[in-house]
Amino acid sequence: MAYSEVDKVAINTIRLLAVDATFKASSGHPGAPMGLAPAAHVLFNRIMTYNPKNANWVNRDRFVLSNGHACMLQYALLHLAGYKMSLDDLKAFRTVDSATPGHPESHDTEGVEVTTGPLGQGFANAVGLAIAERHTAAVFNKPGFDLINNHTYVFLGDGCMMEGVASEAASVAGHLQLGNLIAIYDDNHISIDGDTNCSFTEDVAKRFEAYGWHVVVVDDGDHDLEGIEAAIKKAQAVTDKPSLIKLKTTIGFGSKQQGTHSVHGSALKPDDITQVKIQFGFDPEKTFVVPQEVYDLYHKRSAHGAAREQEWEQLLAKYSQAHPAEAADLKRRLSGQLPEGWEKSLPTYAATDAAVATRKLSETVLTKVEAVVPELLGGSADLTPSTLTRWKAAVDFQPPSLGLGDWSGRYIRYGVREHGMGSIMNGLAAYGTVIPTSGTFLNFVSYAAGAVRLSALSQVRVIWVATHDSIGLGEDGPTHQPIETLAHFRALPNCMVWRPADGNETSAAYYVALTSKHTPSILALSRQNLPQLENSTIAHAIKGGYVVHEAANANITLVSTGSEVGICVDAVKYLKEHHNLTARVVSLPCFEVFDAQSKEYRLSVLPDGIPSLSVEVMSTMGWERYTHEQFGLNRFGASGGYKDVYKKFEFTPEGISKRAVATVEFYKGVSNLRSPVNRAFQQLI
Amino acid sequence: MAYSEVDKVAINTIRLLAVDATFKASSGHPGAPMGLAPAAHVLFNRIMTYNPKNANWVNRDRFVLSNGHACMLQYALLHLAGYKMSLDDLKAFRTVDSATPGHPESHDTEGVEVTTGPLGQGFANAVGLAIAERHTAAVFNKPGFDLINNHTYVFLGDGCMMEGVASEAASVAGHLQLGNLIAIYDDNHISIDGDTNCSFTEDVAKRFEAYGWHVVVVDDGDHDLEGIEAAIKKAQAVTDKPSLIKLKTTIGFGSKQQGTHSVHGSALKPDDITQVKIQFGFDPEKTFVVPQEVYDLYHKRSAHGAAREQEWEQLLAKYSQAHPAEAADLKRRLSGQLPEGWEKSLPTYAATDAAVATRKLSETVLTKVEAVVPELLGGSADLTPSTLTRWKAAVDFQPPSLGLGDWSGRYIRYGVREHGMGSIMNGLAAYGTVIPTSGTFLNFVSYAAGAVRLSALSQVRVIWVATHDSIGLGEDGPTHQPIETLAHFRALPNCMVWRPADGNETSAAYYVALTSKHTPSILALSRQNLPQLENSTIAHAIKGGYVVHEAANANITLVSTGSEVGICVDAVKYLKEHHNLTARVVSLPCFEVFDAQSKEYRLSVLPDGIPSLSVEVMSTMGWERYTHEQFGLNRFGASGGYKDVYKKFEFTPEGISKRAVATVEFYKGVSNLRSPVNRAFQQLI
Repeated sequence: MAYSEVDKVAINTIRLLAVDATFKASSGHPGAPMGLAPAAHVLFNRIMTYNPKNANWVNRDRFVLSNGHACMLQYALLHLAGYKMSLDDLKAFRTVDSATPGHPESHDTEGVEVTTGPLGQGFANAVGLAIAERHTAAVFNKPGFDLINNHTYVFLGDGCMMEGVASEAASVAGHLQLGNLIAIYDDNHISIDGDTNCSFTEDVAKRFEAYGWHVVVVDDGDHDLEGIEAAIKKAQAVTDKPSLIKLKTTIGFGSKQQGTHSVHGSALKPDDITQVKIQFGFDPEKTFVVPQEVYDLYHKRSAHGAAREQEWEQLLAKYSQAHPAEAADLKRRLSGQLPEGWEKSLPTYAATDAAVATRKLSETVLTKVEAVVPELLGGSADLTPSTLTRWKAAVDFQPPSLGLGDWSGRYIRYGVREHGMGSIMNGLAAYGTVIPTSGTFLNFVSYAAGAVRLSALSQVRVIWVATHDSIGLGEDGPTHQPIETLAHFRALPNCMVWRPADGNETSAAYYVALTSKHTPSILALSRQNLPQLENSTIAHAIKGGYVVHEAANANITLVSTGSEVGICVDAVKYLKEHHNLTARVVSLPCFEVFDAQSKEYRLSVLPDGIPSLSVEVMSTMGWERYTHEQFGLNRFGASGGYKDVYKKFEFTPEGISKRAVATVEFYKGVSNLRSPVNRAFQQLI
Repeated sequence: MAYSEVDKVAINTIRLLAVDATFKASSGHPGAPMGLAPAAHVLFNRIMTYNPKNANWVNRDRFVLSNGHACMLQYALLHLAGYKMSLDDLKAFRTVDSATPGHPESHDTEGVEVTTGPLGQGFANAVGLAIAERHTAAVFNKPGFDLINNHTYVFLGDGCMMEGVASEAASVAGHLQLGNLIAIYDDNHISIDGDTNCSFTEDVAKRFEAYGWHVVVVDDGDHDLEGIEAAIKKAQAVTDKPSLIKLKTTIGFGSKQQGTHSVHGSALKPDDITQVKIQFGFDPEKTFVVPQEVYDLYHKRSAHGAAREQEWEQLLAKYSQAHPAEAADLKRRLSGQLPEGWEKSLPTYAATDAAVATRKLSETVLTKVEAVVPELLGGSADLTPSTLTRWKAAVDFQPPSLGLGDWSGRYIRYGVREHGMGSIMNGLAAYGTVIPTSGTFLNFVSYAAGAVRLSALSQVRVIWVATHDSIGLGEDGPTHQPIETLAHFRALPNCMVWRPADGNETSAAYYVALTSKHTPSILALSRQNLPQLENSTIAHAIKGGYVVHEAANANITLVSTGSEVGICVDAVKYLKEHHNLTARVVSLPCFEVFDAQSKEYRLSVLPDGIPSLSVEVMSTMGWERYTHEQFGLNRFGASGGYKDVYKKFEFTPEGISKRAVATVEFYKGVSNLRSPVNRAFQQLI
């Protein structure tokens, strides 16, 4: 069907909604929405299938705005299409508690698939969404039941193109031959520093071809609607490669400043707005105008999507009869609930069981749980033999043509691409049918900090299996030994950092991580063997903190995590024998979860009247919240056998005891010593 | 000169030193050294100019081992060449306090230019080293005085190739046409997960061509020494592009397991070692053997380097006569000392001066200081108009052919590549003649966490101008508002995090950052205007913390940083008027620097007997070390005008007062209240 005048009106409507909203907010980015409106219009009107009345329909096409600063484009489209996005919402753009924040946030705004803005992330999320589709289709589709076959479309700009996280994800997508992924690159030659000539002169098309992508160029993205549609259809036809459409556009199209940096990040001036509106045939006196014909056009498309969804629901109904188990599994996955009784698969241990590294215990959990939780989708950033993330029966997720696995495979070889992995995991989780759990060394989760932050902000369930969690990794030395890492992620809101001390705590960490639908988790796991603790149980550990060793009339409470808990238990004996001091030991594997317990419980673990000392072989930052004194490592580690390294830094029963004695001395005579759990006021949450 | 038998012996000697050292350590990576020994031998024997007796000679060729796990290769070469690296050091590989840690550390080991191991970093460091050479040459070379003309060589493996940080740096290097940079890619087709086919099937050569690199392929990197040398010479001849030599090698060459993942990360088995030694013509009973002819060969090359340095010193002597000012400047820069009296250029302010954003105050500092500190090398990750990092008179650092600047330019357009920028800055600082200072938003310093960590570990002077430092950035919203960021970098050892509150504090932050030769700094700066404080001076602020508002018989100390200090000052009045409470106010712009002050001083700022409350609009983590109670934001922020956002979260005089009252109440009746500065024992440093 040819494009007509109403399409032009629609495109200009979108442009002017962005102009009006940024002007009203005195803030925001009109340039990219004005440049991308034609492509967005084609995509939302002729290409994508979606139903605004059921924004979570699993087989909808996904749209990601990786250049999230262009969000007025997305908000305008959501409004026109009939999502929960009113004209008043658009008018409240960038005001506190609106549905239209400065960058799109998936947990706030229906129709926004993933939270974007930090550049490069959305593109990598889209790779995750596309992987999830391939996998879900392979698992659930049956002859005659093409249940899952959606595309993922992503817009990205020059900024995203320059980010390493996008490069990593692009290489993964090319390797995986994700033919269901279509990226539209807004090649407008402008970034914040001005013309991209000043820093970005590479040949993007050639680079993407090198990654194994199919590349199409559209020369006039401002006007050539037919060309845009043809390029997308060409991309759809290439099913064994992801496609990049290099779309040349004019940033701020229509503005007097079009094609320059000045339309990128601030509102247009009043006289410019007037001339744009006149130029586009709109009344310059009016704002936030949507002609009825534009609504009609979009509602027609939404109705088409609703009809498609209806057909799909009928297909699902038939599928449920033909394949009842699969249908039930799909529905359950989409609810976010794990299979009934899955937790019985979690291994448990007795104190008499052998000492085992928590990374190895994690492998055991994954091996037991994967069999009953089919949505678990493992992987590693090229550290599989070290992170032990691949269960024995695993098949790799690979394009079948490589002969290394298939689309139904549940283990992703991310390569040495931690940031890409983190961001892809966010996309996987956002799809709705899988729970990604992937491994690297704890120290290199920091490479992915940008992605982890968005996991937390966008409230997705992803699990980092972060092994080699301390100086206990030994010989690899300070370049690999985390010091600041736990403090970093403990300070991140809505992120659970677990550092289990033994087998039961490892099972507990997985239990909480897997059942927390809206919170990512980082599991910090040891390279070295750790003993099974006396009083550790899953029930205790899922409280985030509990008493490992109780003692009446204790002189001190030792509070620790992971590999140091066992040393603290040994220190109890040392303290008694050498100093006649009685010590309690508390394990605090997860601050965030402990903080959520009742004050009464927390005070039972960390009571008033007893001085406390934390013991953890890394930055002491944050421990002051739980203990009176802190023994840690506020310096870099050392390369050597891990026992030698622990000895060098005095993390031994003797070294701990020395500090415990100093602590007891220091608090002697302090009457009514309060537990740090007692606070003067509540924090805002 | 043709290669002879002794070259083969030398190559096998290197291989076997790696075999023996990893076996003795029961740990480490023999595979890459065995595969790369031929290329390393050619490079160190026929190509590079260096003088082990003066490892810091500025015009030496630089060598970077980006695949740092192959460090036994580098240690073996340093030993053979005659650096401070004894056979005993090699035998102490990967033991505590040795000169041969598990990955190369520049501050520990002479001849190691940069600290590597975290993949991709060394490659990006090399880009920084190459930029520094181009710039230093442009500034100091004169007709007849080709003083600076060294090359930078970098080895990298598949792991580095997959990392986004390397992609970013490669794009920058291509754009900048760094003909002095030659990268040798160890294309051995093996990474930890096995054959790179499982995750890395892109066309690397094509990708680098797309970045604007010159690419050469060497098909037999195991034997073809002539081919390796020819490829490097070909690369040297291309002076307007960086070069990538794609070198096909066999990992673990000589081992029974050669060409497989099993030789990557663990020592060879005894029987394998025996057969390798026999195969190479070495006595299988002996370990750590270096034939005298091999020493002779290397010492000849070192002598060649020493002679070249002698000639260079003579050139410098003549240069000092012809261009005394430039010569003095170069020598001063190399000493790490700033020009005498430079600090007089730091602006100072009176309390009556206008309120100004600290990002703007930072611009003023840079503008004043750049004129007297010529080694300042600015830049931004495509946020120049926002970070205000470009002083007015700046010329861009660009290849002259682009017409956008020249090599002597002192402002680098990094593009949207924060991680690459951070890692490039580390290389710039390591070169020895420049001090890099670059900008992005504080939130996106997290993208560069991997690089910042290595700045701290390798003790280099780099300065991050990290603007838009809190919810005070307003409308951009939670995706851009740091919450965990300060806690993260405050927990990082040897990293100064500054959050200045006004003009004098901003000057103080720069003063300490610029004079700290071995510590990186992050300057967290506001988007919004901040008032000049009553009692702020550079002298006060360089102590990291000081009293902004003193009061006799105070009921509470409010402790704050940056944009919240002024609000605390306002809260003093509110507390007096509404609650008849007397408050002191302390500004604590830099924890690390404050911690280094005497206990007496710290107690004068945070005295016993007065309850204290910290006020900072982000994670409270870490504040427990300085204050009894904490008012912060342990959740994500909000999108809106910054005053509305501050109000929403109650960071107002009223909101602060409410918590101050609760704090005073809570500590009422606590006798002998101790300042948190008092600790039971000293931390290990």
